[in-house]
Order: sequence, then structure tokens, then C-alpha cells
Amino acid sequence: MNTRRIRLDIEYDGTDFVGWQVQARGRTVQGELSAALDGFLQRNIVPVGAGRTDAGVHACGQVAHFDTDSKHDPERMKRALNAILPEDIAIKAVRDVPGDFHARYSALSKRYRYCISMAKSPLLRRQAWTLHRPKLDVASMRDASRLLRGVHGFEAFCNHDPPPDSFLCDIADCQWMTTGDEIVLEIEANRFLRHMVRVIVGTLVEVGRGKMSAASIGELLTAPDAGNEGIAQRSEAGPTAPACGLCLLYVKYEGD
Amino acid sequence: MNTRRIRLDIEYDGTDFVGWQVQARGRTVQGELSAALDGFLQRNIVPVGAGRTDAGVHACGQVAHFDTDSKHDPERMKRALNAILPEDIAIKAVRDVPGDFHARYSALSKRYRYCISMAKSPLLRRQAWTLHRPKLDVASMRDASRLLRGVHGFEAFCNHDPPPDSFLCDIADCQWMTTGDEIVLEIEANRFLRHMVRVIVGTLVEVGRGKMSAASIGELLTAPDAGNEGIAQRSEAGPTAPACGLCLLYVKYEGD
Repeated sequence: MNTRRIRLDIEYDGTDFVGWQVQARGRTVQGELSAALDGFLQRNIVPVGAGRTDAGVHACGQVAHFDTDSKHDPERMKRALNAILPEDIAIKAVRDVPGDFHARYSALSKRYRYCISMAKSPLLRRQAWTLHRPKLDVASMRDASRLLRGVHGFEAFCNHDPPPDSFLCDIADCQWMTTGDEIVLEIEANRFLRHMVRVIVGTLVEVGRGKMSAASIGELLTAPDAGNEGIAQRSEAGPTAPACGLCLLYVKYEGD
Repeated sequence: MNTRRIRLDIEYDGTDFVGWQVQARGRTVQGELSAALDGFLQRNIVPVGAGRTDAGVHACGQVAHFDTDSKHDPERMKRALNAILPEDIAIKAVRDVPGDFHARYSALSKRYRYCISMAKSPLLRRQAWTLHRPKLDVASMRDASRLLRGVHGFEAFCNHDPPPDSFLCDIADCQWMTTGDEIVLEIEANRFLRHMVRVIVGTLVEVGRGKMSAASIGELLTAPDAGNEGIAQRSEAGPTAPACGLCLLYVKYEGD
């Protein structure tokens, strides 16, 4: 029997999950997908995700892959999985991919969005960090975000448990957009460290509040050739912003 | 002591309310506002709303008024009320208005949005009607919606319990917008009958499904001079669309 490799594009509301990855306790996106695949294909399949999102983090375009000997066409798989999956997970697309496609290792970049609501908003509250006061200085936050672009060591901007192999990330884009009472960061990079977007947001909000200068953000970045030498400390950056404001927009692959 | 009349602009997530209006049982928006005003001003105040939204219907811009002898400035009232109110209700604006302003009787028009998601969407599901299949013919829905504009009797498009004084409504605007997998109706009128937007949406979806013709919608409208004569029947229109897709966008007043 020929084995096919299938790519899933997935949207989820992270509110009621303990995260992407299957864990000893708690409801996970990977666990629900695995149960749905088991129900539909009668096989024990654990899909491989492009990255692990934390508890409470949302996704519009998470990607995962799995192998199967099923003969079902992709559209039929999509409908069947969506019927089985709970209402907080949806399969947006199912497609056959080459056998060497890997959701994680083939990814060229990922893009995240972080939404801050500057006013109490019942209709946005599940997908935004509500920050009433003080009014943020968005111009300074923009200045600081520009310093993050390019290749830097993000030692100060991540959770060190567990310590990553490398702190180097290449930020292709990092910009704030404002509409009404919302300010939204979109950030794209070749890789992200644990909690990285949320620490960046928490730190840029400190800049917006005037507690840190925009220029000081540049000093927290380590040079690409510095290695993992502990030059910048996590404690020098700002707090970790809440998970609910974060959404994985998409994962980019060759040919997308 | 001088009495002031205060206007509130209110946003709410209708999911967990049995509606706007205080009822014998269940959590209501008016009831929560009344409790918050009581907590802050130490007065028994029941704010008067521009209109009653049903259970599950959302609002970005509901309007209400109340009278008070309080001396607090509007910005302070807004902050205090938002701190007291639960997370699914927010005061967007507080302002002093003339004593003859009435949230309901002074309203010139109201605008509603109804959102349909054509694909399963975890992130939209609380604020959209999910309709997977069949694919809707949006062009026909647009043709039908144009027929609704102007002054007509909407006898076939409302709940008759209780029977309204008049079925006449003047629809200033009624149009579908599409973005990605969403199709959204925005409709503005001088007044709306009970369930009217939801019956219009349910009926236009029948047109989109090919079960009713666009032209037949015109035949369900009664002429402005027909009176309440029972010419068109509620049963001739389509079903009532679910509440969760509906949002009161704003209420328009003289000078707004």
C-alpha cells in the first residue's frame, strides 16, 4: 500500500487548550486532532506540528503533517475531520504533499499577530490583551520594533526552560498597526524561541509606557557572533504578555 | 439639585445574556447596567435603551440614557462603570445630553451587521452563523437585498408576538459584503420589527440556496398604503437566522 503524506492547515481558538502539544494532563490541539484522525481513519496518528503554541494562544494557520495509507480524497477528509473535531478546532485545508515535506523542518518562516485593545472590549476580549491605561506611546514602540529586525540573539526575549540550542533568530518583519482602539503587532521570523513574541510585546509595551527607552531595546539584543554566552539576561526585558492576544497567522513553505 | 441626563454608548457580547431587557429570570444587559449604576451612584436606576436586542445578539454601539443628580464627570463615570461591569459589557462613551434626548424616541436610524461564515471558524464562531454548504449564490442574495430598500410593510419578515403597531419600515441601506469565507449583511433602517434582521437574513439565505427566487422577495413586501391587513404571511418568508451572527453596530441621532 502506498503511503501518502498529508498536510493540514488548522485554525483554533486556544482559550480552552493547555497548548498544542499532547501532555499528560489537559486538552490539547494535537490530542484532539489525533483523536479525530483515529475516529476517521481508524489509525493511531499523532500529527507533527510546525510549532508548539502555548496554552491560550490561537492560530489561524497552524500547519501539521501525518502519513496515511487512506485512499480518501482531501476534500472528503477535510469535511469528515471538521465534523468530528470540536467547534474550537477547524481544518481549513487538506492537501497531499511530497514525502519529504515536514511541517516543522520545511518551514521557512512563521508570522504571528499580537492584538492589544486600548479599551475594554467585550467582543475582542478573548483575542486581545486589554490595556486601559496609561495611553501607550505607539511611535516609540514603532522605533523599538524596527531595532528587532534582522539577525540577532534573542537571549533576553525568551523563556530559558529548556535552554534553546541557539538564541539566533532572523526577524524579517516586525511592525505595529493601529485601528480604532486596537494596536496590533505583526512579526515574521525564520524561527521563534519559547515565549518570544509575548516577551517582545511585553517589552515594547514597557517602551510605550515610557519605562524603557526605544534605544535600550537594541542593547538587549546580542550580536550574531556572540554565541550563547549569557550577555543579555531575560530579567532585563519586560514581562511576558498574556497568551490570549497571540495568534499564529501562517507558516510559510517553499512554493507557498 | 440639578438633574442631568446621561447617554451611554455600550458594547456587549450577547452570548451569555437572555437579552437586553430586564426579565423575571436570567442575566440581562439592562440588569447588569442597572446594578453597576446602583453600585456606583447609590441610586436605583434602570437605563432606557434605544432598542431591545434578543438573547445572544451582540452590540458594538447600543445606546441608553438615564437621569442622575451625580456630579461625577463623564470620564470618571465611564471608568468606574467599566470597573464594576462584567467583562462581557463595556461602556464605550459617557456624555451629557439635553433633557429631551431619548435613547429610543430620538433615534433616527439603527444599523445592524449580520455575519455568515461559509467555513467552520473557531475564531469567528461566537459572532457568526456557520453555514458550510451548499455554497450560497451571493449575486442573487444581492439582487434580493436591493428590493428591500425603501419604505415597505415587513409583515412577512417579523415575529408577530406581540403584533406591532405598524409593519412599515424605511430601509436606507441593505448590502452584502464578502471577505474571504465571510459574507456580511449591513442593514440600516429608521426602525426594525421583532426578529426582522434575522428573518431577512434567513430569507436571503433561502435565495442564496436557490430555494426562493430573488424576485419573489419583492412579492413578500406589502405596499406602504396596505395597512396591517395580513396580505403577506410570516410563513412565506424564510426561517429566522441564529442570534449569534447579529450585532447592533450603531444608533444614529440628530447631530451624530
